[in-house]
Amino acid sequence: MSARERISLYDTTLRDGAQTHGVDFSVEDKWLLARQLDALGLDYIEAGYPGANPTDTRLFAEARPLPHAKLTAFGMTRRPGRSISNDPGFQALLAAKVDAICLVAKSWDFHVEVALGISPEENLDGIKESVAAVVAAGREALLDCEHFFDGYKANPDYALRCAKAAYEAGARWVVLCDTNGGTLPEEVEAIVGEVVKHIPGDRLGIHVHNDTDNGVANSLAAVRAGARQIQGTMNGLGERCGNANLTSIIPTLMLKSDYADRYETGVTPDKLRTLTHASRILDEVLNRSPNRHAPYVGESAFAHKGGIHVSAVQKDPRTYEHVPPEAVGNRRKLLVSDQAGRSNILAELDRIGIVTPKSDPRIARLLDEVKQRESMGYAYEAADASFELLARRMLGNVPQFFEVDSFRVMVERRHNALGDLVTTSEATVKVRIDGETMMSVGEGNGPVNALDNALRKDLGRYQSFIDDLSLVDYKVRILTGGTDAITRVLVESRDGKGNRWFTVGVSPNIVDASFEALIDSINYKLIRDGAPAP
Amino acid sequence: MSARERISLYDTTLRDGAQTHGVDFSVEDKWLLARQLDALGLDYIEAGYPGANPTDTRLFAEARPLPHAKLTAFGMTRRPGRSISNDPGFQALLAAKVDAICLVAKSWDFHVEVALGISPEENLDGIKESVAAVVAAGREALLDCEHFFDGYKANPDYALRCAKAAYEAGARWVVLCDTNGGTLPEEVEAIVGEVVKHIPGDRLGIHVHNDTDNGVANSLAAVRAGARQIQGTMNGLGERCGNANLTSIIPTLMLKSDYADRYETGVTPDKLRTLTHASRILDEVLNRSPNRHAPYVGESAFAHKGGIHVSAVQKDPRTYEHVPPEAVGNRRKLLVSDQAGRSNILAELDRIGIVTPKSDPRIARLLDEVKQRESMGYAYEAADASFELLARRMLGNVPQFFEVDSFRVMVERRHNALGDLVTTSEATVKVRIDGETMMSVGEGNGPVNALDNALRKDLGRYQSFIDDLSLVDYKVRILTGGTDAITRVLVESRDGKGNRWFTVGVSPNIVDASFEALIDSINYKLIRDGAPAP
Repeated sequence: MSARERISLYDTTLRDGAQTHGVDFSVEDKWLLARQLDALGLDYIEAGYPGANPTDTRLFAEARPLPHAKLTAFGMTRRPGRSISNDPGFQALLAAKVDAICLVAKSWDFHVEVALGISPEENLDGIKESVAAVVAAGREALLDCEHFFDGYKANPDYALRCAKAAYEAGARWVVLCDTNGGTLPEEVEAIVGEVVKHIPGDRLGIHVHNDTDNGVANSLAAVRAGARQIQGTMNGLGERCGNANLTSIIPTLMLKSDYADRYETGVTPDKLRTLTHASRILDEVLNRSPNRHAPYVGESAFAHKGGIHVSAVQKDPRTYEHVPPEAVGNRRKLLVSDQAGRSNILAELDRIGIVTPKSDPRIARLLDEVKQRESMGYAYEAADASFELLARRMLGNVPQFFEVDSFRVMVERRHNALGDLVTTSEATVKVRIDGETMMSVGEGNGPVNALDNALRKDLGRYQSFIDDLSLVDYKVRILTGGTDAITRVLVESRDGKGNRWFTVGVSPNIVDASFEALIDSINYKLIRDGAPAP
Repeated sequence: MSARERISLYDTTLRDGAQTHGVDFSVEDKWLLARQLDALGLDYIEAGYPGANPTDTRLFAEARPLPHAKLTAFGMTRRPGRSISNDPGFQALLAAKVDAICLVAKSWDFHVEVALGISPEENLDGIKESVAAVVAAGREALLDCEHFFDGYKANPDYALRCAKAAYEAGARWVVLCDTNGGTLPEEVEAIVGEVVKHIPGDRLGIHVHNDTDNGVANSLAAVRAGARQIQGTMNGLGERCGNANLTSIIPTLMLKSDYADRYETGVTPDKLRTLTHASRILDEVLNRSPNRHAPYVGESAFAHKGGIHVSAVQKDPRTYEHVPPEAVGNRRKLLVSDQAGRSNILAELDRIGIVTPKSDPRIARLLDEVKQRESMGYAYEAADASFELLARRMLGNVPQFFEVDSFRVMVERRHNALGDLVTTSEATVKVRIDGETMMSVGEGNGPVNALDNALRKDLGRYQSFIDDLSLVDYKVRILTGGTDAITRVLVESRDGKGNRWFTVGVSPNIVDASFEALIDSINYKLIRDGAPAP
């Protein structure tokens, strides 16, 4: 066991990941996430670039050490033509209260000449002096060799001299960067294989971008060739197509024998079980919808749709699962759809808690009903609550809590008193509960919103059950199946306890379809919270 | 040039891609996409699984040959214990009007025993007889060896015997599948390297899933080891974490010298320039938001943030771009500069036929207007006619053919005389033309349809211009930009001559958004057909 070599994991979600289009972190976000990443067992957390923007400046002014990981600041080597002491940017970097400093420098002679406009020797001096200054200030030094692979392909000698300059000046890690993200795995493996002849692998890191969809493969290729640090981001955040995705790399290192037998990281099996949670927290902070299809941590990563797959997975998970979902804190999902068979339905019923013998003829009828409704446009795999209602209606009994007698929605556009064109939406709903008829009226910013407001204004004895129900999302899809356009509406609802559920409605009329999904949502909530039958 | 070896591209977006959680294609969707994929230059288009569900059954009953690609049906080898002639599923497959049939068979002895419960020899017989039956029926046969890599790791001899059985029985391609998606690139390369010792590489295909984020790398590793067919999906659709992403693989094969110097595909450089469009069309059909960060085709794939990157890219694109965006039909996006937008606008004006000097200050104003409207939710890339109207309004002059004074839409659900709940939609519109006010009323199967019917019932002197206008498609997307939900409606219209155009409307109110897109469509038609100004 102790013969396994250590792979260092370097997270740059909070710095390179912050370059993602549409992403910005507050100082509070960064601390929250830094603690999460630390708890996950990562070795370095690069939190930002002191002086680059007000957030990062404040962040490093308030910096506190992390329990385990080395808090790291990012910055440039000293500016060309300046001395270390005469470069305010570099001094700001040295002033940051951090354990380590990761400097970036160019290692492609074309860039040194075209972008910087300085001589190759001047660039090498900058690397040496800057790394030495970080070491002299009592910090651990890392050097990101920008454009290392493109530089190596153009001028291997110069690229190598840059890397060696950093190593000889005392950099703990010399990091080979595929800045443009266009290098392929076989190239990474070959080039890192050359570099380890000059710099020991346990001093070499890899930092790649995902522009050819090979970000993960390139990182692993570098490890195979000898590099012992991987730099990446959670959920593959990062500019353009993102950085190497640590959320995919970490479980591969730990669960696949090609790597797990040879290497170890600071992530223990216990911590690995928090990976899915850590990934979701990041999306939560950024208010992004999690990528359902993300390897290992996605909601669909262990979802099984076809009937044959489902029955095989239930016999033995290894038949269709490459690792156990629990190992990364994820879970298996058996989907109900028109591709589905009996075994999906049975597994779903089991999950919902409906107990019925496998031979129950109503199961076949439920399956037929699902298939027939899906061919009409319903989508039950995306609408778990509507499926549950349908199943309970066919297998158990769902009380008729209330009945809608009629509704009317009016959308009107006309000139107001000021002469401006304004549009108003108003709805009235007539509902019968316990034989009593109640009418409500509501307004909204559109017909469906008005109808929803009217419907939920007064549900009599059930009102208290739906007070904490809110609509989170509303999706519309026009299905042109055959001659007439059919509208499918998916509604996502939430209650005060944070439960979420999805319902579906289908009709040629968008208002009808929406209404169906709304009614399903309310009925689901009433059943789940044990509302008394009328 | 002619020394380059041919790589065959096999698309399974419409079959394995249809296993994606939340994805379902209608028959019409499948034909539309099959034609797109054919035009892209792919070699095989696997359209579905005859008999598996009503959609695919209808699809193959209506099947027509594609101009270039081989239309392919997917299915299982004959059922254990049955003869070919005695297996209705297999007979349905043979009855499909297709060029090729791709069969799937197990090649992992564990699966043969656990899932099928038959002997390894019986499985081999099934493969041989099924492949031979496809060949005898005059179709090209392919065999997907399910779980080939896991099977090979457990029992290399048996996995190989399965593959060889198919090859010897006459399969054009023997396809090695990483069904669970857990195999790593170095394993794929080593195992395919063994298989090519027994079966020629130009008879071997690779079919992988993306469960470790190595779907692209695994496909390329197989090519390096000798396989000459790649099976994958557009946009990496597919169950769990998706299939190998052809949208990433194709440009790598064509633009990276490691591959482009050695191999060629049916995708020409001209066709490659339609790749981004093909990727977006698929999302459009599925009503999914395109993945901004997708390699090569994503909106952010060539986006540059920050002054240094931008000025370097403008000096020389190679500084921060691994391939030219135009090569895949994508474009550079400079997030801090107007340059990219400006040249795009000029190109668009040129296309429309609006002649204006480059220095015209109204071009900058038009660009600002487009940017501001796109930030509100408008999508002019998808709505050419709305863009043209906007440009003509700001640069030329668009007559006010008619003015809408007011409208009212009512949707009512109530019991009819028979006691059934029925929903009716009715709209009235008041329009002013040449100072004269006209009112019309219309019914429809929903509020927007009713409004459209009312609006187009009487447009006075312009009525003859819109008589041949019809709505082909109507798409709704809810954009949750910020606090309030905004609705975007895209309308596709057509005239009697077969011209098609797209318009867009945006509003919190779906009726308003729809109305805006309808009005744009009518105005566009009036201008294009030279209707006289009032």
